Amino acid sequence: TPESAERTAVPGVATGLAVTGAGGDVLFIEANAAPGAQGNGEPELVLTGQLGDVMKESAHIALSYLRSQGDRFGADPEELRGRRLHVHVPAGAVPKDGPSAGVTMVTALASLLTGRLVRAEVGMTGEVSLTGRVLPIGGVKQKLLAAHRAGLTEVLLPARNAADLDDVPASVREALTVHLMEDVADVVALALEPATTAQVQHAA
Amino acid sequence: TPESAERTAVPGVATGLAVTGAGGDVLFIEANAAPGAQGNGEPELVLTGQLGDVMKESAHIALSYLRSQGDRFGADPEELRGRRLHVHVPAGAVPKDGPSAGVTMVTALASLLTGRLVRAEVGMTGEVSLTGRVLPIGGVKQKLLAAHRAGLTEVLLPARNAADLDDVPASVREALTVHLMEDVADVVALALEPATTAQVQHAA
Amino acid sequence: TPESAERTAVPGVATGLAVTGAGGDVLFIEANAAPGAQGNGEPELVLTGQLGDVMKESAHIALSYLRSQGDRFGADPEELRGRRLHVHVPAGAVPKDGPSAGVTMVTALASLLTGRLVRAEVGMTGEVSLTGRVLPIGGVKQKLLAAHRAGLTEVLLPARNAADLDDVPASVREALTVHLMEDVADVVALALEPATTAQVQHAA
Amino acid sequence: TPESAERTAVPGVATGLAVTGAGGDVLFIEANAAPGAQGNGEPELVLTGQLGDVMKESAHIALSYLRSQGDRFGADPEELRGRRLHVHVPAGAVPKDGPSAGVTMVTALASLLTGRLVRAEVGMTGEVSLTGRVLPIGGVKQKLLAAHRAGLTEVLLPARNAADLDDVPASVREALTVHLMEDVADVVALALEPATTAQVQHAA
Amino acid sequence: TPESAERTAVPGVATGLAVTGAGGDVLFIEANAAPGAQGNGEPELVLTGQLGDVMKESAHIALSYLRSQGDRFGADPEELRGRRLHVHVPAGAVPKDGPSAGVTMVTALASLLTGRLVRAEVGMTGEVSLTGRVLPIGGVKQKLLAAHRAGLTEVLLPARNAADLDDVPASVREALTVHLMEDVADVVALALEPATTAQVQHAA
Amino acid sequence: TPESAERTAVPGVATGLAVTGAGGDVLFIEANAAPGAQGNGEPELVLTGQLGDVMKESAHIALSYLRSQGDRFGADPEELRGRRLHVHVPAGAVPKDGPSAGVTMVTALASLLTGRLVRAEVGMTGEVSLTGRVLPIGGVKQKLLAAHRAGLTEVLLPARNAADLDDVPASVREALTVHLMEDVADVVALALEPATTAQVQHAA
Ligand SMILES: [Ca+2]
Ligand SMILES: [Ca+2]
Ligand SMILES: [Ca+2]
Ligand SMILES: [Ca+2]
Ligand SMILES: [Ca+2]
Ligand SMILES: [Ca+2]
Ligand SMILES: [Ca+2]
Ligand SMILES: [Ca+2]
Ligand SMILES: [Ca+2]
Ligand SMILES: [Ca+2]
Ligand SMILES: [Ca+2]
Ligand SMILES: [Ca+2]
Repeated sequence: TPESAERTAVPGVATGLAVTGAGGDVLFIEANAAPGAQGNGEPELVLTGQLGDVMKESAHIALSYLRSQGDRFGADPEELRGRRLHVHVPAGAVPKDGPSAGVTMVTALASLLTGRLVRAEVGMTGEVSLTGRVLPIGGVKQKLLAAHRAGLTEVLLPARNAADLDDVPASVREALTVHLMEDVADVVALALEPATTAQVQHAA
Repeated sequence: TPESAERTAVPGVATGLAVTGAGGDVLFIEANAAPGAQGNGEPELVLTGQLGDVMKESAHIALSYLRSQGDRFGADPEELRGRRLHVHVPAGAVPKDGPSAGVTMVTALASLLTGRLVRAEVGMTGEVSLTGRVLPIGGVKQKLLAAHRAGLTEVLLPARNAADLDDVPASVREALTVHLMEDVADVVALALEPATTAQVQHAA
Repeated sequence: TPESAERTAVPGVATGLAVTGAGGDVLFIEANAAPGAQGNGEPELVLTGQLGDVMKESAHIALSYLRSQGDRFGADPEELRGRRLHVHVPAGAVPKDGPSAGVTMVTALASLLTGRLVRAEVGMTGEVSLTGRVLPIGGVKQKLLAAHRAGLTEVLLPARNAADLDDVPASVREALTVHLMEDVADVVALALEPATTAQVQHAA
Repeated sequence: TPESAERTAVPGVATGLAVTGAGGDVLFIEANAAPGAQGNGEPELVLTGQLGDVMKESAHIALSYLRSQGDRFGADPEELRGRRLHVHVPAGAVPKDGPSAGVTMVTALASLLTGRLVRAEVGMTGEVSLTGRVLPIGGVKQKLLAAHRAGLTEVLLPARNAADLDDVPASVREALTVHLMEDVADVVALALEPATTAQVQHAA
Repeated sequence: TPESAERTAVPGVATGLAVTGAGGDVLFIEANAAPGAQGNGEPELVLTGQLGDVMKESAHIALSYLRSQGDRFGADPEELRGRRLHVHVPAGAVPKDGPSAGVTMVTALASLLTGRLVRAEVGMTGEVSLTGRVLPIGGVKQKLLAAHRAGLTEVLLPARNAADLDDVPASVREALTVHLMEDVADVVALALEPATTAQVQHAA
Repeated sequence: TPESAERTAVPGVATGLAVTGAGGDVLFIEANAAPGAQGNGEPELVLTGQLGDVMKESAHIALSYLRSQGDRFGADPEELRGRRLHVHVPAGAVPKDGPSAGVTMVTALASLLTGRLVRAEVGMTGEVSLTGRVLPIGGVKQKLLAAHRAGLTEVLLPARNAADLDDVPASVREALTVHLMEDVADVVALALEPATTAQVQHAA
């Protein structure tokens, strides 16, 4: 789609699906990294976009998961040392909360760290546990309608939300490829563009 | 049980028993460790899952206990230096509080530090004092019903809750092996799988 | 105009457009840099002017953007290390909030870091995402009226606000050159005076 | 008594007397020490048990007192450098406040630092000033009744509470040995078991 | 005047003009410096006198201004490194707020750093921007009446408050020399006593 | 008097005069010092006794004053480096606030730092400015009555409270020697016992 293609044209941006007061919507999670304090200290996390407590915790869970499991998809945890990671969710004035952006945060950070782009046609939703399990979320129907409206063609959904697909209009379901996920490492594998040799020395 | 088996398939996850608005439930406490700030400083504790004050204090008590007594079950306190320990309790949006997850926190951290899995058929509940004593908790009936519903077959309970077992339906009591505990070191000994030689260089 | 000319006569000051209780107004964003703590640590951000949460987040986004993209317009991120950046928005007692000063913050900091003045005849408004995209804002009509009243002759506006120009009186539209922007790097390129050789060793 | 004997069987635990909504009660103050941050920095104090402001201040006063006067009873202040002292007061979910646990906190920490056990038959109450003076407290009657109920046989009380002993039933007074204290160093001397040679290399 | 002469008899004290519930008043801003943490770190600012948010921000603006522009009047920014600057505004129990003490804070700190006394007959008021511009304030009439009552003979006022002088009774205006200021560097130049050779090694 | 003699028998304790709900009272300010964090960093201030904001600020003012002027009465500011100063005001559960303990705080700290005792017969009250001026306070009548009741024979009062002495009953005024003070250095000179040679290596 035009907007998600434009937004995800740089590493570190992933497309999530959210429930808002007015139905569902797509939301972009942007991550960027800067040299942190001198030395090799623990990575620092800066969070903006008027995120609520639960969504801030999701970012911490995403970072801890990547630090312990990131080497499963080529995100070397050692590269995180001494980094300052900034995660922002526009629009900046809209309060956002809830755990369902967990998979999107892991994916945005994995994209940033590997230098691989997120595929523009993919939207995703799902809580992530600290061990990387994908936990069920609410609002499946509104989220799939929003993904379809925004021109996305693939959606990654928690396996434990399979039953909620019954509520989605057939026309929308048929237009979308829905993947049911249990492990966030599989989410990342599906969502990122293949690595290219140029990405060996990526810019994170 | 399918779910607890899946959840506790990695070191650092223990199955607790909780009272919720709608009776009892099982809850998984997940712990993971990352290299902390450079050097050998004091371990840092990151807590997520919308934990209340009392439950956060339980995590600090669990860590202090392990630092002073962990060598009783092979968790070398020296290995904690310079670590960043993240303890998360899904589901991420559900507020949780109270002291009764104390034994579960000690067990999850002991599993993480020794690299030994928690036995999948075991659920537990109990407050822990700083010296490792297991103190009584509430909701024994609801918790045992929840353990049974979730397919667990062994429950670790504070000895001082022995009298509360009278309230549990006979069919449930018979289906469960209940251990009455006074010392959290015994909880850990009962709950962890035996050590294997492979775990000498565990991943904590 | 007399006031914006006077205010932007030193590097680090940019002219923004804001909506207030009484219509629109121009507002000046001032940035200054001092040697921070010894060493080459991460830059520190001091924010004054009774800024609300969202506006403070805009400043953090501006800084993160400059750290990762600043070399696109000659703001060497390395020079930010160990700096203490103070961003102030007079008048000091008036509470201010919202994301629409994002482009002005990026411009003020870019001016400070390059030593190039902001052009006195330019006013600007727009939210900035972490990747530098210019996002739409509200109050286009009031902001353009205020720019005109203050004697500004060029206005930088988010491209996605193009439709809002219909609401602006023709006399005002004709008096102003309006640039529609998608990328904040273009905002900076348009807003800053050309570099002079003297600015190679600027004072930031 | 069974409970206090069991609780005070390790160094660092002292038996206090408290007033609760339902009369008096005994309460155990537990202290433990771990290697703190690397180096010889100032000791850190971690406080748990839902302690109120005044009770937290008592712990800071106890620590400051021990740092400046601890050598009067063999608690070498130098050993406190670089330590992380955790003081916990079970039960973890019960809020507690007030200054009257001051003497008990000094005694628990003195026990921890010297490796000498607190005598199991002793309960105590009293505010402590920074210079070690024992200041009067309330609830003498309820506290002595609770001590008696719990099977304690010796009670340490502020000298300035002597008049309050008139309110205590004769049978209880006769069953208890009451010591009236002015200086917390005397409290510690009375409450700790004698040092043994084995305690020269105690475990603090 | 007796009081301002006595108060400003040491470097670091400047006389401001304030509006209170009961008309205007003079207020003294006191600054002192101590060796801060070891090393050459960033100066620390300690603020007392029950200052509100806006007035605290004024102190930060004053410090940032002096760090970037102080060499214009002999306040070497390098000397600020590693210093702990304490700014106090008696009386200590009276809450104070607002931006109009900005020029007085710059002057008190400039006096402290140069070792030059503030002239006892001078009172001042004015907001300061980060670039040193003097911005208009309220309460001109009450402030000039208070200055006159307190025996001051010179008043430094923002140029943009010139029109407010019409409201001041002629007898008071004639008794006072009013200077209209645009740049806080001029305020400092007017307010400080001339430097003497003895001040080369001043005591800051 | 018995109580103030007992309380001020160690260096670091001074007797203040306060207004309470029930008239006036004497209050003891206790200070003690411990080796702080390793190195020669800035002194740390720990404040207990349920002190309000204004009273906490008084302690910071007292410390800043001593750091810049302490050598006027033999309190070497260099000795403060790397120290942790604890100031406590019993009784620990009674909230206290207001600026009038300023002179007492300076005196207690000066006693601690010089090792000279505070004279047991002296009570004092007065706000202190950052430059050491003694500012007027309220409640003179109640405070002098309390001093007399407590058996004190000398009272140090701000000179600007001279007029309030008219309200004090003649019998009380005659029994007390009242000193009117303008400079807190004079307060310290009057309140401390003379130095002895033994105090050269005092215990701070
Ligand atoms: Ca919340
Ligand atoms: Ca559902
Ligand atoms: Ca709470
Ligand atoms: Ca029960
Ligand atoms: Ca807000
Ligand atoms: Ca619009
Ligand atoms: Ca409180
Ligand atoms: Ca009593
Ligand atoms: Ca405010
Ligand atoms: Ca005016
Ligand atoms: Ca207050
Ligand atoms: Ca009075």
